[in-house]
Amino acid sequence: MDSANPERELPVTDRTRHRRFREQGSLDRDQLDAILGAGFICHLGVTVEGTLMVIPTVYGSDGSTLYFHGSVASRSLLASPDATVCVTVTHVDGLVLARSVFEHGVNYRSAMVYGTPRLVTDPDEKLAGLRCLTEHATPGQWDYARRPSRKEIAATALLALSLNEASVKIRTGAPDDGDSEDARLGLWAGVLPLRATWGALEPDPALPEGVEAPAHLTKRVGAPAN
Amino acid sequence: MDSANPERELPVTDRTRHRRFREQGSLDRDQLDAILGAGFICHLGVTVEGTLMVIPTVYGSDGSTLYFHGSVASRSLLASPDATVCVTVTHVDGLVLARSVFEHGVNYRSAMVYGTPRLVTDPDEKLAGLRCLTEHATPGQWDYARRPSRKEIAATALLALSLNEASVKIRTGAPDDGDSEDARLGLWAGVLPLRATWGALEPDPALPEGVEAPAHLTKRVGAPAN
Repeated sequence: MDSANPERELPVTDRTRHRRFREQGSLDRDQLDAILGAGFICHLGVTVEGTLMVIPTVYGSDGSTLYFHGSVASRSLLASPDATVCVTVTHVDGLVLARSVFEHGVNYRSAMVYGTPRLVTDPDEKLAGLRCLTEHATPGQWDYARRPSRKEIAATALLALSLNEASVKIRTGAPDDGDSEDARLGLWAGVLPLRATWGALEPDPALPEGVEAPAHLTKRVGAPAN
Repeated sequence: MDSANPERELPVTDRTRHRRFREQGSLDRDQLDAILGAGFICHLGVTVEGTLMVIPTVYGSDGSTLYFHGSVASRSLLASPDATVCVTVTHVDGLVLARSVFEHGVNYRSAMVYGTPRLVTDPDEKLAGLRCLTEHATPGQWDYARRPSRKEIAATALLALSLNEASVKIRTGAPDDGDSEDARLGLWAGVLPLRATWGALEPDPALPEGVEAPAHLTKRVGAPAN
């Protein structure tokens, strides 16, 4: 997949050079932004005290930096400040059902970001990063909910990871065996799509009567989630 | 979360001992089976030639072993046969919207499996593992599509990972600040659920007219996907 705009091309590094399924790989920043913008949960790979862990966690992106909570990862960071991580965001779009089992696959959009996270200590950047995290998952919520106090901010470990070393993989469309010998088998082939949508709001049972949900939440109900 | 049945308890190891948010952690095999059974994409963490990578990939589980394609991971395995991996499967169930930003969170079900994968070389186990992979994502498809030929089986690297060292984390329900001072702020709080469903089948454009989709696929349309 070539970039439409060479200026939006991410640099090739040893880690982001696509070695397999090259036709699915891309270094296009706009595609990276779109994939990161469509989700809010990443899988963070980090080695903590000698153990490789893959931790699902919330993230936010401002286009050049990925922010995420660092409670687990920061233990490792403090132990070895040069530790690199890999952060992967994946949207699964459907099952690719071919005529042959061998050609079965998955339609997906995935981004992998490599680097060494930085523990955010500057109070202004920390507040901006927490705002980014909150607004990324739930636009409008930062201005609606009670913002973190100084004590709460101090109790939160926030990590920042540059988006400079990243790559994207995307697979879309029909199976690949439509022009093979298997096409004569008379079997159905195609895609079973997977859809993520926001459901009806579930009020906290502790909520007093008469407290209505704000528009920035109600407008998402029924909308596609990625 | 305590196990309902102590005999279905997974062993505690240094890697599976829950250190944070203990109330969300579990070592219940039935919960592990349920989480693995509800998905088909895992995030595989592995160190390949010195680089930690988190790779989204298809898996299948037979209850005691996780099977997955090994094209990327096997390079690393061959280089260092004792390399451990971490495989994480996550289902995101909704955004937890509290009165305060600090108490915001996510409802989710997640399983982490640790171990050293084994390259499957026995032809019978390899066929059984590929069947497990196929049937896990799409029950009924192994008997419907053309099964892999000897040549295709040889071209596929299959890895097996024991499910003996694993742990589970689950968060459900309302936000946790319903009885805090923040409850007096008069703000809405609750959960915005995220639903994954199977969409309408998309036939391959190369499909001849008159080839109908089989019942094991049509019956999934509109059904919850996890």
